[in-house]
Amino acid sequence: MKREIYVGRVGIGGNHPVSIQSMTTTDTRDYSSTLAQIKRLYIAGCEIVRVAVPDQESVISLKTIVSESPLPIIADIHFNPDLALKSIKAGIDGIRINPGNISSISKLSKIIKTASQHNIPIRIGVNSGSIEKKYQKSGKTRAEMMVDSVMDKIKFFEDSGFCNIKISLKSSDVKETIKAYRMIDNLCDYPLHLGITEAGTIFSGTIKSSIGIGSLLADGIGNTIRVSLTDDPVKEIRVAEEILKVLGLKEKGIEIISCPTCARVSVDLINIVKKFEERLSKIKTDKNIKIAIMGCEVNGPGEAKDADIGIAFSKSKAYIFKKGKLIDKLNPENSLEKLINMVIES
Amino acid sequence: MKREIYVGRVGIGGNHPVSIQSMTTTDTRDYSSTLAQIKRLYIAGCEIVRVAVPDQESVISLKTIVSESPLPIIADIHFNPDLALKSIKAGIDGIRINPGNISSISKLSKIIKTASQHNIPIRIGVNSGSIEKKYQKSGKTRAEMMVDSVMDKIKFFEDSGFCNIKISLKSSDVKETIKAYRMIDNLCDYPLHLGITEAGTIFSGTIKSSIGIGSLLADGIGNTIRVSLTDDPVKEIRVAEEILKVLGLKEKGIEIISCPTCARVSVDLINIVKKFEERLSKIKTDKNIKIAIMGCEVNGPGEAKDADIGIAFSKSKAYIFKKGKLIDKLNPENSLEKLINMVIES
Repeated sequence: MKREIYVGRVGIGGNHPVSIQSMTTTDTRDYSSTLAQIKRLYIAGCEIVRVAVPDQESVISLKTIVSESPLPIIADIHFNPDLALKSIKAGIDGIRINPGNISSISKLSKIIKTASQHNIPIRIGVNSGSIEKKYQKSGKTRAEMMVDSVMDKIKFFEDSGFCNIKISLKSSDVKETIKAYRMIDNLCDYPLHLGITEAGTIFSGTIKSSIGIGSLLADGIGNTIRVSLTDDPVKEIRVAEEILKVLGLKEKGIEIISCPTCARVSVDLINIVKKFEERLSKIKTDKNIKIAIMGCEVNGPGEAKDADIGIAFSKSKAYIFKKGKLIDKLNPENSLEKLINMVIES
Repeated sequence: MKREIYVGRVGIGGNHPVSIQSMTTTDTRDYSSTLAQIKRLYIAGCEIVRVAVPDQESVISLKTIVSESPLPIIADIHFNPDLALKSIKAGIDGIRINPGNISSISKLSKIIKTASQHNIPIRIGVNSGSIEKKYQKSGKTRAEMMVDSVMDKIKFFEDSGFCNIKISLKSSDVKETIKAYRMIDNLCDYPLHLGITEAGTIFSGTIKSSIGIGSLLADGIGNTIRVSLTDDPVKEIRVAEEILKVLGLKEKGIEIISCPTCARVSVDLINIVKKFEERLSKIKTDKNIKIAIMGCEVNGPGEAKDADIGIAFSKSKAYIFKKGKLIDKLNPENSLEKLINMVIES
């Protein structure tokens, strides 16, 4: 079993289910577009989202993104250690760096120390496209070079007293990726983030990711996954979910669909959903039940109808749906109890 | 290495490349529709085609299909041994039976003898959905039951002096399929036909087949494959070809590697790649050309260098690589034309 780390509220490794990640494709400096995309990813089933932070302006935007995101945020940093430090201070839930492209050892140590102070994990991500020269030895396969490179980095982190890490070894070559992950899986107990880089378009990217991520997961290797597609990242989530379902790694059980909330919502939906989740966590069921909790009358009734049990709030009422049919209108304050009873009875 | 068999002109096992199969979805009695579909499959890259033969009328039609088909024909027979005998006499190139559903031992012997006289191979195909009761023992996994069942059948064929066989062990459960094939691969040297049954729609079927077939092929298991989709069988060929390409098992032609884009990307990479794919689809080449189209300076230059032709965008420039060497710096808007010309010239 792998060690357990947390990216925000999402546990990775240990006994945690394999989680689904994606990455925003918007300009991070444009926080409203970025947040809109994060909300779409959240609704689609994404559990952790990564955001590239290539410059100072992005760091400023990051603060807003972190505070308003429904998902834990990982900052993706390359080359510039100052951006890493500032991102951590902006309140991110995790950071991804490739230590190979941060040239100053003292700066790397500073990043590790700051992550430690803020109690956030670091993903050490080595990609086949950026292996440092010193690991490019003849007689070694590229998978071996990637593993050599990452093992050195792990040692540096451990020597710094920092073990809140996860590892990725991504290659655009699928067989190489499988080999590299099989090797590292035997060599360390840090949770593994799986992915195929530069997988390509929806067609070939789906196939590449399914083979690479899927064959590793089928053998019990991998703790969190990201499907990369040169397309709308929401499509990455659909492919990732299907891979997990195919391998029996995603229990459907009670599935809650809820809107990310916006100006139209007149109830405190985030708290309603939180309370509801809390209550539900105590109910055991073998059934797959899809529950939609929607904040307003725009998408609310549509989503709520599509679910087994649905609730859509208007300004003064809660509309209750069962298998697509409106069955009740209640005061919002009574609706939570009603939903819980419907779940117990179903 | 596995034994070598031949389905018509197509070698399976030995040093032969992994071949692609499909199955017609037309009414076999309607030979003109069936032949039309076989021709579409042939053009798409299918190498062997299977045709269901459920009744006497289909056998009559089969003669015409066999004589006019551009592809070797395998007859798929269940339950009725007489249809098997008549199909062999109709000139088919191979036959697929599940010996478990042919109840008469003497009839099974007759099929084996007739196949031997006509020098055609038999696929012994055991499916998880039709394991005979005697193999359904408690304490065994379903994968083990499938293997037990097929091993008994192999023994019967060998005792009859017939070794011109290939084996399939298909399950709709992907992990079970992987387990069953890994076991049988160790137990015998007959070539293996890979597939996932009831894989489903294009979306989930592509993912299921990619994981199941792909992870076995990645470990060198499997000699011929069939992707099953509830869709036009031509789509099965596209998925099968892509699986083989991803694993380096098929001459690639033009392969595009592209990044999933993120906030670092300053060009509209998704559209650039789409346009490029469109233009490329009109260029015919016998060569294997790997083209990397990368959005930024992080993994961009590394991946672009590793490709035959590469392009990495920065904020204002497109850097063009050929066989790892930077050969040009252009305005991004001129780069597509440059790449197309490089492909044509190479």
